[in-house]
Parts: sequence; C-alpha cells; structure tokens
Amino acid sequence: MTPRAVRVACAQIAPAVGDLDGNRRLTREAVRGAVAAGARLVVLPELCTSGYVFESAEEARACAEPADGPALRGWAEEAARGEAVVVGGFCELGPEGVLFNSAAVVDGSGVLAVYRKIHLWDRELLFFEPGGEPAPVVETPLGRIGVGVCYDLNFPESARGLALAGAEVVALPANFPYSEGPEGERPIEVTLAMATAHLNRVFVAVCDRCGPERGVEWVGASVVCDERGWIVAGPPEGTGTVLADCDLARARDKAWNERNDVLADRRPDLYGLGEPTGVA
Amino acid sequence: MTPRAVRVACAQIAPAVGDLDGNRRLTREAVRGAVAAGARLVVLPELCTSGYVFESAEEARACAEPADGPALRGWAEEAARGEAVVVGGFCELGPEGVLFNSAAVVDGSGVLAVYRKIHLWDRELLFFEPGGEPAPVVETPLGRIGVGVCYDLNFPESARGLALAGAEVVALPANFPYSEGPEGERPIEVTLAMATAHLNRVFVAVCDRCGPERGVEWVGASVVCDERGWIVAGPPEGTGTVLADCDLARARDKAWNERNDVLADRRPDLYGLGEPTGVA
Repeated sequence: MTPRAVRVACAQIAPAVGDLDGNRRLTREAVRGAVAAGARLVVLPELCTSGYVFESAEEARACAEPADGPALRGWAEEAARGEAVVVGGFCELGPEGVLFNSAAVVDGSGVLAVYRKIHLWDRELLFFEPGGEPAPVVETPLGRIGVGVCYDLNFPESARGLALAGAEVVALPANFPYSEGPEGERPIEVTLAMATAHLNRVFVAVCDRCGPERGVEWVGASVVCDERGWIVAGPPEGTGTVLADCDLARARDKAWNERNDVLADRRPDLYGLGEPTGVA
Repeated sequence: MTPRAVRVACAQIAPAVGDLDGNRRLTREAVRGAVAAGARLVVLPELCTSGYVFESAEEARACAEPADGPALRGWAEEAARGEAVVVGGFCELGPEGVLFNSAAVVDGSGVLAVYRKIHLWDRELLFFEPGGEPAPVVETPLGRIGVGVCYDLNFPESARGLALAGAEVVALPANFPYSEGPEGERPIEVTLAMATAHLNRVFVAVCDRCGPERGVEWVGASVVCDERGWIVAGPPEGTGTVLADCDLARARDKAWNERNDVLADRRPDLYGLGEPTGVA
C-alpha cells in the first residue's frame, strides 16, 4: 500500500457555555492554527460551538444553529486554506426545531456529513433528541473518516461498525467529565481509545475539551492512537493542539498474520447480540 | 446489593509442551495452592494441559484428552477442597476424534461447561476445529462466570455477549505470544482487559502463561480488573499466582448514573454489524 501520511490535529480548547460569538472565533482560530501547522484532519471537541453544561432546554436552544450556520461556515473557510477536513461537535438546530448533539465533517466546500449522536449521556437527554442514523464514514482525499461523539466510545459496537464500513480513522469529538481514578493511572477514556484502535486496526483521534464549566471539570483526554493502539500524541496539559503524522493507509491492512484478519475472523452468529431491529 | 466477595486467582504457570503427566501435576498443584490461599475462582492458562507450540497435528492429537479425562478430574478434586470453581484451558479430544482448543468450567462435582474457542489464532487453525457454540455464562454459587479464551479478547462482541447473558466476571485463559511495544507501555493485552471490564461493567480475570516454548515467549499478562476497568492485581513477573478479592455483586449494577445504563443504552439497530446468520 502507498503510504498516505496525514497530519492529524486535535484542538483541545476551552469553549464558554452560551458565548456563541466567542466560540465561533475560538473554534475558527483553532482550525486556522492547526491548518497552518500542516494538519489535514482537524478534530474539535463535542458541542464546541455552544459549551456543554446547559442550565435549561431554553439555553440549549438559544445555543443551537443549523449545519449551514455561521460556525460551520467559518470552519469550512479555514479548511479551504489547506485542503483540510474538520470534524467538530456542534449544538444542532435540526429540522422542525429539534435539537441534536451533532458532529459535522466539513471541508472547504462545506458540510460533507452530519452525525447526530446516538448515545446521549446524562443531562444531554433533557436537551437533545438521540440520532436515528448510523454514524457515517466519509470518503475524503485524506482517507475514510469515521465519526463518533464522546459516550459512543463506550460502545465498541460503534467503532466496529465504522471499521466494517471502511473507516481508516475514527474522529471523536468529546467532552469527558472528569472522574477519579487510581493514582498514576491514565484516564480510562485514553485506555478505551487505545483499545478501540487496536481492536479495529484504525487510527483514533479523540478531541476532548478543557476549562471548568459550571463546576464540571474535564478529563482533557485528547489523543491520537495509531492502528496498533499505541498513543502517538497527547494528551496535552490544559489547552493545546495535539499533532500527529499518521499513515492512514496502514489501517487498510487488517491482517494480523497470514491466517488471521481483524474483521474477517468475527463470528457474528455466535455473539448473542440480538438481531438488529431497524432497516438494513 | 449484598456484597459477594470472591477471591479470584490467576495461576500464571509454565506448562511444558507434550508433558501431559507433568502438566497434570503442575495445574493440579496450582489449583491446590490457589484454593489453599482462599481462592474460590481459579483461572488457569489456555491449553495448560498440553502446552501450546505443537509441531504437528499428530503431536496435538497425542496431547488431547476428553473433558472427562484425568487432567480435569484432578482440577475437580482440588476444587472440592474449597468449594471453588476452576476455569482452565485444555486440548480437548472431542466427539469423533475432533480436536478443540477448549476451556472448561469445573467445580467439585465435575465439569460444569466446556467452551470450544471460536476465534482460532494462527497455527491453531492447523490443529483445531473452531467451536460452533457461543461462549457460556455459568451460574455458580460464586456468581455468573463468563468464559473466553485468548484471541477472543480481540472481539469486543464476545465479552458484550457474555455481559448481556449476565456474566459478572469473564474468566479468560490465554497464551499471549509476546510482541514488542513502545518503551514503558504496558502490554496491549492488559489494556484490552481493562477496556473489556469498563465497557461491560464486569470483572475480568485473565490467566496468561509464561516460560519460553520452542522459541515463543509469552506476555505474562495475567491480571484481574474490577468492573470499572482498573487493575486490582497483576501481572506478575514470570510464574506466580495473582490474587484479588472481588465483590462480584458490583457487576450487576449497570447504571452509570440515573439516566445511563451500560447495556440498555445500546442501539443495536444502528451499528451496521450485520444480521446474525445462525439460529437464535
């Protein structure tokens, strides 16, 4: 396989809840900086246009904008400067006024895909509708980008589905609330990112946020893992952009050895995971 | 929930390939020692009755014995001394002379269940038939024990199925061949065990082997992880028995918070994992 070196950036920023103008500037500048540093894939945190800790459904609604709104237009304009692709989380004002916790895949031409988070965490359930469509894998000149958001990382089924659909890298905007772990141990979210990469032989680019918000602290677990599960960059202390050069073509090779294959060795009839209930 | 403290032991031993008598003694003594140390769940490595690195199908066949053979009878006799349950890997001579890489769940009354490994690794494919039945969850007085073997850990679908079937602890006999990783990084198999535990809110007890065999070195990654994914004991350096007291009842609580549940939050119709092809 021809190597396909792609500089990946995860911009661990500190959005301010409710400050739409400020967050537009902050996220746009983060994309600009990453593109100037040579990044072709730029990942931003979950809900980075709005902040996360809403006090009410009304506040969440006041922070929402459609996918063709000004925040994502700004990302597209910055992406255009470097033929980059941006994957970032936003508070989406959807059709008929329904709110979603979404992630958009954006390039210089505009929005390529919107994914509406299907696993909502805690109080998100008070503000958002869960998405009703599978997470997308977007074919781009950089490679095939799969998308997840935050708590999706707790469902290995999600990343498996993305890998089966051809994803070479999983871009995962996140807002991981901080929780205590054993002394000296890395955050469990980083362990999950490593396992996700190894189990599916895909690169994983997690972009977390930082900066306390209404009493919530964040893990700050932005990392890039290679297709073997090893951390190649991150996490930073506080705000900062994680940069890693990834040969995404390596994720196409699913052979562990001459007899074993990451995906083909699955035995889906023997896992007892229940029959899908939706349409194919 | 009433706490259910169970001492779990993973006996990281060094079997010798082809030495059936020696391995019977070694494994029996490992169970005896663990039971004497108060263990109620004793996990032994994969293929610990036979060794692993067979030179030929004939050699594998010469190392095989049925589930009611002398090796597992020895485990049952030792288990009876402490009302213990043993989960260990053995080279199974199955019906009609077919060989399986199996794990047995054994207590003082004898063999409770046999699981025939469904994901065969590398040269195992030359010697063994893959199992055709899902991995079992065995209800015991200690708790519900799910079973996996080695490479099964690479299929998050396996542990997910066990958790959905009620497993509180996944016992995983293994022979992990050593591979190089980054300096200072723990073996990826330990990371996978941690993630498996966290993602399913189950305890995970991995029993690896050690001692070089015909040029193959082993990771020696025997660990016990709690239901949050944290390592509570192991891995040892070389041979040694990992001991951990686990309150298995904690694995029944699948609530992350008042709104989220480890298993109920799954969206099986949206993962694109393909429809099971077997019978329900």
